[in-house]
Amino acid sequence: MRKLFIVLFFMLLSKWAQSQQLERIEPMFWWVGMSNPKLQLLVHGAGIAKLSVQLNHPGVKLAKVHQVENPNYLFLDLEIAREAKAGKFPIVFTKAGKKKLQYTYELKNRVKEPSRIQGVSGKDLIYLLMPDRFANGDPGNDIVKGMRENKLNRDSMYYRHGGDLQGLIGKLDYLDDLGVTAIWMTPEIENDMTEASYHGYAATDHYKIDPRYGSLALYKKYVDKAHEKGFKIVKDVVHNHMGTGHWLYRDMPMKSWVNQWPAYTQTSYRDEPVMDPHAAEADKKKMLNGWFVPVMPDFNQQNPFVQNYLTQNNIWWIEYAGIDGLRLDTYPYNDPDYMKDWMQKIKTEFPTLSVFGETLVNSVAAQAYFTQGNTVNRGFDTELPGITDAVLKNALYEALNGNTGWTDGVFRLYATLAQDFLYQDASRNVIFLDNHDMSRLYSMVNEDIDKFKSGIALLLTMRGIPQLYYGTEILMKNHYHPPGLVRMDFPGGWPGDKADKFTASGRTALENEAFNFVRMLARYRKSSPALQRGKMMQFVPENGIYTYFRYLPEGGKQVMVIVNAEGKAKELPTARFAERMASVSAATNVITAQKLENLKIITVPAKTTLVLELN
Amino acid sequence: MRKLFIVLFFMLLSKWAQSQQLERIEPMFWWVGMSNPKLQLLVHGAGIAKLSVQLNHPGVKLAKVHQVENPNYLFLDLEIAREAKAGKFPIVFTKAGKKKLQYTYELKNRVKEPSRIQGVSGKDLIYLLMPDRFANGDPGNDIVKGMRENKLNRDSMYYRHGGDLQGLIGKLDYLDDLGVTAIWMTPEIENDMTEASYHGYAATDHYKIDPRYGSLALYKKYVDKAHEKGFKIVKDVVHNHMGTGHWLYRDMPMKSWVNQWPAYTQTSYRDEPVMDPHAAEADKKKMLNGWFVPVMPDFNQQNPFVQNYLTQNNIWWIEYAGIDGLRLDTYPYNDPDYMKDWMQKIKTEFPTLSVFGETLVNSVAAQAYFTQGNTVNRGFDTELPGITDAVLKNALYEALNGNTGWTDGVFRLYATLAQDFLYQDASRNVIFLDNHDMSRLYSMVNEDIDKFKSGIALLLTMRGIPQLYYGTEILMKNHYHPPGLVRMDFPGGWPGDKADKFTASGRTALENEAFNFVRMLARYRKSSPALQRGKMMQFVPENGIYTYFRYLPEGGKQVMVIVNAEGKAKELPTARFAERMASVSAATNVITAQKLENLKIITVPAKTTLVLELN
Repeated sequence: MRKLFIVLFFMLLSKWAQSQQLERIEPMFWWVGMSNPKLQLLVHGAGIAKLSVQLNHPGVKLAKVHQVENPNYLFLDLEIAREAKAGKFPIVFTKAGKKKLQYTYELKNRVKEPSRIQGVSGKDLIYLLMPDRFANGDPGNDIVKGMRENKLNRDSMYYRHGGDLQGLIGKLDYLDDLGVTAIWMTPEIENDMTEASYHGYAATDHYKIDPRYGSLALYKKYVDKAHEKGFKIVKDVVHNHMGTGHWLYRDMPMKSWVNQWPAYTQTSYRDEPVMDPHAAEADKKKMLNGWFVPVMPDFNQQNPFVQNYLTQNNIWWIEYAGIDGLRLDTYPYNDPDYMKDWMQKIKTEFPTLSVFGETLVNSVAAQAYFTQGNTVNRGFDTELPGITDAVLKNALYEALNGNTGWTDGVFRLYATLAQDFLYQDASRNVIFLDNHDMSRLYSMVNEDIDKFKSGIALLLTMRGIPQLYYGTEILMKNHYHPPGLVRMDFPGGWPGDKADKFTASGRTALENEAFNFVRMLARYRKSSPALQRGKMMQFVPENGIYTYFRYLPEGGKQVMVIVNAEGKAKELPTARFAERMASVSAATNVITAQKLENLKIITVPAKTTLVLELN
Repeated sequence: MRKLFIVLFFMLLSKWAQSQQLERIEPMFWWVGMSNPKLQLLVHGAGIAKLSVQLNHPGVKLAKVHQVENPNYLFLDLEIAREAKAGKFPIVFTKAGKKKLQYTYELKNRVKEPSRIQGVSGKDLIYLLMPDRFANGDPGNDIVKGMRENKLNRDSMYYRHGGDLQGLIGKLDYLDDLGVTAIWMTPEIENDMTEASYHGYAATDHYKIDPRYGSLALYKKYVDKAHEKGFKIVKDVVHNHMGTGHWLYRDMPMKSWVNQWPAYTQTSYRDEPVMDPHAAEADKKKMLNGWFVPVMPDFNQQNPFVQNYLTQNNIWWIEYAGIDGLRLDTYPYNDPDYMKDWMQKIKTEFPTLSVFGETLVNSVAAQAYFTQGNTVNRGFDTELPGITDAVLKNALYEALNGNTGWTDGVFRLYATLAQDFLYQDASRNVIFLDNHDMSRLYSMVNEDIDKFKSGIALLLTMRGIPQLYYGTEILMKNHYHPPGLVRMDFPGGWPGDKADKFTASGRTALENEAFNFVRMLARYRKSSPALQRGKMMQFVPENGIYTYFRYLPEGGKQVMVIVNAEGKAKELPTARFAERMASVSAATNVITAQKLENLKIITVPAKTTLVLELN
């Protein structure tokens, strides 16, 4: 009896082993004309490793077939010669010479428009939004059958709310009116997770738009429409981890696909060991290889198969959709060597692409450590052009809310910017006052509309690439703790919302005041080369007032920014700004359009950042 | 009548003009065998510029005689050939070929002992004292006739107290017993000022020991005696300013000898404009050229005569007395180009000398900016080996007094040290808990003896060159504000003091506890190569406990330091320190000599820094 079972078992096993399947090949298509001739295809299917592989296309060579631990995978190393032509060809899987399976692979021609991959710069104003929380244009995809999270609950911050790409497409005119020029949404690829799938940072399919947002075709349509209207597109990509629901985690190519620990080990979230010359290897390993949270397996970025998979995925999206910039999630948690190699490969294919990394660290030095051409990361250049400037954000709030002191109040802001000597080019930093992981501006200034405006004026006149968080322009509020309340729906984005704050008539007078202030400056920015690409000159604060100028070395209109964070109006004598003002005869308040008659002494109202155009 | 007066006036003027005088030549002697063959003699005397100059000594060439604005000065450029021999020769001042004045100049042989100019390193413990406040060995020089400040008032922090070199000489054995190996006193050169002359930072004669401290000969004797006893000598030098009582200010060679302003202009005391890429020139100028205080004229360090004068003065003292290290006052206020040139010249003559600059700035990046081989000061190497690590000092207090938080408490200390990547070599930093410009340790820890010991243990086991402030070892206290109270007399240093805290019997039990703790660790330091020159490995704090190791890569006994700043005892599991402890079998508490049986879990008492020697 027992023997019979064993025989049956082996018969079944043998049956299973025979019926190989092809689930997917990724990237599912590629291009001729890439700078890197190499392409590594990941082939996934039950028992696929039992099969041999052939392909035949002029200029395309199957250089190597890798079998790995898991027989459900093959990795195919292709070499695509410069002279290879676009076209389709079969990849044939055979057993004992007999064709078992076939996949029609396509090599496309690259889109060669000179305006493609525009890059994001100080000329832009980036609008950050969470697609689940911005606008619901297609209620039909709010709940998608077969997906693990099958609830919609707009009253909870942890469930899905139904926002989608169609909703965003419908609001492009709103964003254009506001003066936004670039859109960054939190990740839109599939997050088929059982809980909190809305945030997007737990990918379950790297080549698929989450069906709750739409389809690949709709994403392409969104990007094209946005480009037509003059927007640039920033894609949010995550190298560090995926979600436990990812098919690549549920059936891993090899144990070393993710960082393995004897017992679950969380990252320390501390960047210090990465740069500390006194660091212990154990601490460095925990930071880099520890998991972000239990439901986010940590990619082993020292595994070359993982490296190829992630890098090619990013290239695929940029080339496919025409992405203008990438935002890299949790940058300091990634393997530094891999990220450098990644950056070089990305730059080689897309020299005009912008890239900035999320670096939620505690000092300018630490931020600079992670950037291209920095001088502090001895002999190791990350090649990363920019970072999200969280230290400046903290300094901006200290300026708005703190009391003037040797290192406090506006002096914190002044001194933080003085440390720009640590960067190769701080103007590539993305600057911000809030985002999906932080308390919102209006709450941070204790719902003081004057301070709100002062903060916006700083954001839109400071060196760097400004980023606005959705809804901040209409005074959406809340502190991050309890978490999630900063991720509320944009009122009016859902059919039936009781107020539509996308329209002036749906906004309160105060909301319109805020909105109009943001719009006024955002639009002025578009017309001001000094703000878009000018140098900055700042002066040591005196009498609690901090003053800086944006200017072009070649001349043209300068912008003078005067920050009085204190609760009383002040007089600012300008004699000491002669370096910038010697030949200035007149000034206009950019917000009020008021002309300033006397530039010798400028009156600065309480809690105000004056923005003056100098003539 | 009026005409007669005018005639008389011109007769007198002419008479005065004829009777040229020679007040001084500086440096008053020099050496053959210097690397730099150039020497610029400053000649001062009424109407001296009217005279011609000759000299005749084999190998010595009078290359140029400079007349400057003030006819009371001549600057003589000498070139001393390599083959020039030591000896005396006349410098002859003539008028119309007739000898009017003569000065016998001497070129000496350099002292060529290999142990000379020893340098100060992590092997040392520097003791910083104010000579007026440490010990009065010669009451006869307490008040010196003819000097501008002619009062002695030990009850006021602003008057002279009478301490002197003889007093210090008498306490060398005390310092040796304590485990001190290097002595830095605040400037001992003449400060003939009307007020607060005791602090020493307002020089009135760069070549003269203040007569209230003693003579040049006594200073030489002090240095020699200290060297005999194994001490190294750090000299405190001021490049930025002098006192208004300086003869060089009262009769300046030229207007540009000091930085001139239309109206008195104080420095901003802000280092940011020096390094800020966005800085205004006006702010930079104010920082560098503004005066420190009204009674301290700011040297114009771009004036080559000033440059030569100051540089030669420093070289003269080092060569003359056999100085081992220099401490540079107010380093960031000096002209960067001059200080770089100065440093190169000093290093050329004295390659083994140590130099550290006072940098009372607000970030590790700013401190690093001023140091040799730093990577942040783009293309400009200050060549300055070390700085006074005020940022670490602040972090040490945050560790002792703060509450553990993401960037607070011990994490501040940990994160500050992690930024050592900004330095070429942070072990050249001078580390300290207090000095003459800061609140004293015992007051900073709210007179908590446990925290006091914890601070001392950190100071004496941390990377860098530790510096102890006089009297801290006997729990001298006070906050800096009101200023000056941290500059009290060392009790027992004056004849008739009611208690002599230089002796165990004069100290209270608590003072002896503190003294013995400092001595125990200072002496242990002398026997521990790991503490003296070992590398450091630190671990991310966990459970409020911060742990670091000092070790030699080549092996030998390690020192493990465990900081529990919190108010309750804790257990520290050591498994995660395997990188350092894998082969360690036993440990000894350096203070108690107690052996630790169980190294798997170490109990750390409340508010304690454990220092363990590992075997």
